[in-house]
Parts: sequence; structure tokens; C-alpha cells
Amino acid sequence: MCVSDLEAIGVDIGGTAVKLGRVDARGRVLAHAELQTPADLSAEDAVARIAAAIPNLTGVTAALPVGVGCAGLVDSARGVVDTSPNLPRWGDVPLAQMMEASTRMRTAVLNDANAFTLAEARLGAGEGRSPVVGITLGTGVGGGIVTAGHLFGGSHGFAGEIGHMSVRWDGEPCPCGNAGCLELDVGRRPLVTRYLRRAAWKAGTPAFDLCQGEVDALSPKLLAEAAQHGDDIARDVYRRAGEILGVALANIANLVDPAVIVIGGGIAQAGALILDPAREQLARRAMAARWSVPPVEPAALGVRAGVIGAALFALDAGDAEGPS
Amino acid sequence: MCVSDLEAIGVDIGGTAVKLGRVDARGRVLAHAELQTPADLSAEDAVARIAAAIPNLTGVTAALPVGVGCAGLVDSARGVVDTSPNLPRWGDVPLAQMMEASTRMRTAVLNDANAFTLAEARLGAGEGRSPVVGITLGTGVGGGIVTAGHLFGGSHGFAGEIGHMSVRWDGEPCPCGNAGCLELDVGRRPLVTRYLRRAAWKAGTPAFDLCQGEVDALSPKLLAEAAQHGDDIARDVYRRAGEILGVALANIANLVDPAVIVIGGGIAQAGALILDPAREQLARRAMAARWSVPPVEPAALGVRAGVIGAALFALDAGDAEGPS
Repeated sequence: MCVSDLEAIGVDIGGTAVKLGRVDARGRVLAHAELQTPADLSAEDAVARIAAAIPNLTGVTAALPVGVGCAGLVDSARGVVDTSPNLPRWGDVPLAQMMEASTRMRTAVLNDANAFTLAEARLGAGEGRSPVVGITLGTGVGGGIVTAGHLFGGSHGFAGEIGHMSVRWDGEPCPCGNAGCLELDVGRRPLVTRYLRRAAWKAGTPAFDLCQGEVDALSPKLLAEAAQHGDDIARDVYRRAGEILGVALANIANLVDPAVIVIGGGIAQAGALILDPAREQLARRAMAARWSVPPVEPAALGVRAGVIGAALFALDAGDAEGPS
Repeated sequence: MCVSDLEAIGVDIGGTAVKLGRVDARGRVLAHAELQTPADLSAEDAVARIAAAIPNLTGVTAALPVGVGCAGLVDSARGVVDTSPNLPRWGDVPLAQMMEASTRMRTAVLNDANAFTLAEARLGAGEGRSPVVGITLGTGVGGGIVTAGHLFGGSHGFAGEIGHMSVRWDGEPCPCGNAGCLELDVGRRPLVTRYLRRAAWKAGTPAFDLCQGEVDALSPKLLAEAAQHGDDIARDVYRRAGEILGVALANIANLVDPAVIVIGGGIAQAGALILDPAREQLARRAMAARWSVPPVEPAALGVRAGVIGAALFALDAGDAEGPS
């Protein structure tokens, strides 16, 4: 066994930043960096920036396995990013191959919410339980399934796309081609839009004051603060999002029978505001709810869960290939 | 290795009959029997009838592992039938323990649609592919997930309850506690009810003539025949059921990324009438649909798939315990 079996580089490509870290097999982040990136980042540019940053991580003295998490449909078997909502210019990008050509390091790619779930299942809120379903609530809604410590990727690695579960077949059309998708009710934009449609935007209301009147500053985070300050409309907007989330959780409970559902991402920071109504609907709707409703727990690993999960995935991929 | 590693008894408890068979490890049914049972069958009665029938199966000369498939929520880990829609008097029944006390044969229990899926994945329409999602369309809608030849049971064995996926969160209430469940649109009763609500029930229409005017004789099978004979309302009723099924298939594709979806059960006999509209919706709604929509294929093993799958599950359970 050589050093490459014990450590890996995890990379988390987001819409405005790339996080990367050197991570050991127990999920400890030994070195960390964050690169700000333009919104229209090309795949070539991303690979060049990541390849330049890896050797600068403290302690990277040799080739390590690399895992790269990225939003969207990621075909792990082929190492290809099919499409990514965060990165509109990316389509059918052979990311693993490009990374390997540029870094000379073996690279595995996966969906970012799959990476989050792998980390939370092994080392975070799902530790010791199986299966674990992970859900990230942010600009979009992502997800993953981990069973006995390993990703359930499906036939391509696309499994876990919970954000595009239709919970109302004749609902609002979604850019993905489906209708009534969970993401249309639980993402950043629907929360803010629904609030502004109902609330008077004027001085003296908690949301207005928290934003100092700047409507563009209104975010799920500020809405959650406004709700804590007694803004009933903000509370209602979160309640509705939580209830729709709970419908999806019941569908997931019926289909996957998870031991725990772990929820992360920025919107999950609202805590009970969104999770309690979700739990209520889950308990009401899941078949086994009478006596075995899966617990819904907040994520435990923080913002580096994606980096940790991507590194763990790279270490697993190395194991699958046998000792080097 | 003794004979019990090579053969098993598979049992499929339905609403009006119990099927059982002696099955080898390659899924061949070596002997078979079917017991007619009353609709209000008690668990004690079921166990007594099954225990009496097993020794009468040709070739059963020693204790064999037994697998019992049953509709409803079946906790495989504890060997308990929690609830069963076919068997309203059953609740929290320790079926494995009761069977073992009565037969002196090691017994494993599982959901009947899980058994169907296991058989189809190993030996039927899903052979050689992974993951396989199986769906049974009958009085109710059941399902299962098999990955790399083994059931994905979830934390209790409840996984695969596709019939109670909500595809319209504010839809019709379902007895299960959820609303807008797939089963409310795709089961036997909704097909017949929807037809009768729209069609004139009179001599000269294909459905009326096929039933010889007996409205109670109207079944999904006869509706399918009527559609083949040019009854446009019957065709429409199947189309709508197929479209709603397709919404659920897209949700399953997004969540599980199956290599194939295998559809069985009586209503699936309608073939293209229901499967083509389902395939259309799946292709339109699934995220990866552009280039990797999972094929939707009819089941291949016929009415004994449940018996075969239950026997395979019993053989697996024996393997998990180690050689006897």
C-alpha cells in the first residue's frame, strides 16, 4: 500500500467557486483552498485552475487520486459531465480524461450531491446507518443514496436526482423537461419569489429592514431571519416549501426505505422552519410511518462535505482498481 | 454443501390463492401447486395450509429453505408482515416464526413485488443488467429494486413501494395516508371506474358485448380487448393510466437510474396500450432522457415469477447465514 491509498484530493466545483482539499481516508481535511471562478467558467479553464492549485495544497508531494464533484448529470462510469445547471457551457465534457491529461493524477468524477451524501453517510449525520439518503437544498435541490457505505449510483451514476422528482404531474413546467419538480418549490428562487408575491415590501417589516430595502439582497437566509423576527409570511413560505419537501421525502421513504435522511445546503440552515413541516408530511404520507418513519437530520460536516465526499470516492475508485 | 443449498420452496400469498413450488438455484420450478383461499384468510390458516401442502410437492423429501412473498409491508429482517392490503386481518404477523414452528423449515419472508423483481432481474427480462426496477400492475401496484442480483430492501425491506408514490401532492386521498398515489390511477379499480364514468354501457359497444352485459365482469383485461376492438374510451382510459405511470417511471429513473424497468402483473398484459404512453412520458420527463432513457420491458417469467423470486430469496438468506 502506497501513500495514494491513504490520501486523495477532493474537488467541489460550484457555480461561483471551486473548493479543493487534501483529505485522508478518515475524511480529515489536511489542507484546503478555495478558488473564485467566473459564472461562465469553461471546462478547460476549470481544469487548468484546479491543476494549478493542487500542487499548492500543503503536503501534496506526489500523485494522489483525485475526485471531482460537480452539479448536474455526471456519468461516473465514463468520467463525463453530461450537463450541469451551474455551468451552462458544459455539455458532454470528458472531465476525468481532461483532468488526468493535465494533472497526471487518476481522476474520478461524480455528482456533487452524491459526494455530499457519501461524506455524510460515512462520517457525518448518517454514520453507522444504511441506507442513507442525502439531500442538498440550495440554488437547486440535489441528492444521493448511500448503502452500506457506498454510493448507489445507478447504471450511469445519475441516481439521486431528487430535485427533479415530480410531486404534481400537471404542475409548473421545469426547464429539465418534467413538470411539478420539487426544485420548483424548494430552491432559492421560489422561496424569494413567493415571499415577494405575498408580502408588502416596505420599511418596518422584518425582511425589508434586514435587507435595508435592497430587494436583491433578499435570500433564503434573510427570509429565515425575518421569520425568526415574527414575519408570518416568511414563515408561511418556508412552511409550504417544507410541506412539498415532505411529499418528496415520503416518496423516497416508500421507494428506498432509508434508515435516515440527511439534509444539507444553504436552505437547510433554516432548520425547523423547513424541516418540521417536512417531517409532518413525511409522517402523514409514508407507508411505514406508523412505526418507522425515517429520521430527518441536518447535515453534520459543514461546507466541506462535498470535498470530503469527492476524495472518499476517489479512494474507493482506487480500491476498486486494486492496489497500485 | 447439502441439498438445502440447491433447492428451496417458494410461496406466493395472493388475495385469493396461494401458489407454491419447489425451485432450484437456477430458478427452474420443479414442482408446483396452487391453493384456493378465502378472502378473509387468517395468518394461522394460511400457515397451516402452506405447511400441509409443502410435503406434497413432488420431490420434497427433506427440509428445504422456504421463501414466502406477500403483498404489503414486509419486514424481512424481523420476518414480520406489518400490514397487507390483500389480507386485511393481518397486522404485525410474525410469519417467518410461525412458518418455522409449523414446518421446521428455515423461512424468509419478503414483499411479493420484491420477489417478482428478484426473479425477473436474475432470470427474466432484467437478466444481466443492474439496477433493475420491477413493477407489478394488478389490483394494486407493487415494485422492487434489484442491484447486482440482490434485492435493495432498504432498512426494513420496505423499499420499492412504487404504488404509493404521490405524483400529485394535492390529489385524491389514498387509504395509505398519502394523496395522489400512483395506485389510484393505475390499479384495476380506477381503470374500470374511469371507463364506466365515461362510456355508455349499452349493447353494441365492444366492452358491453365482451362482458355480455354483466358490468361486474368488466376487468382491465376485457377493457384491453375492447380497446383492440376499437373502443376509443377504453383506449383513452389506458392512455391516461399509462401517462401517470410514466410520470412515476421518470421519478424512478431520476432517483434510481435503472438499467431497465420491468413491468408485470395482469394490467401489464395490455402491452403497448399502457406501456407506450408510459414510455412517452418517461422520455419526456426523465433528466437523462435525451440519450439514456431506461428501456421499459414486459416481464418474461409469467405468473410464477413470485414463487421463483421467493425461493431465490430463501436460498440467498441461507447463503448469508453461511453453509449449513
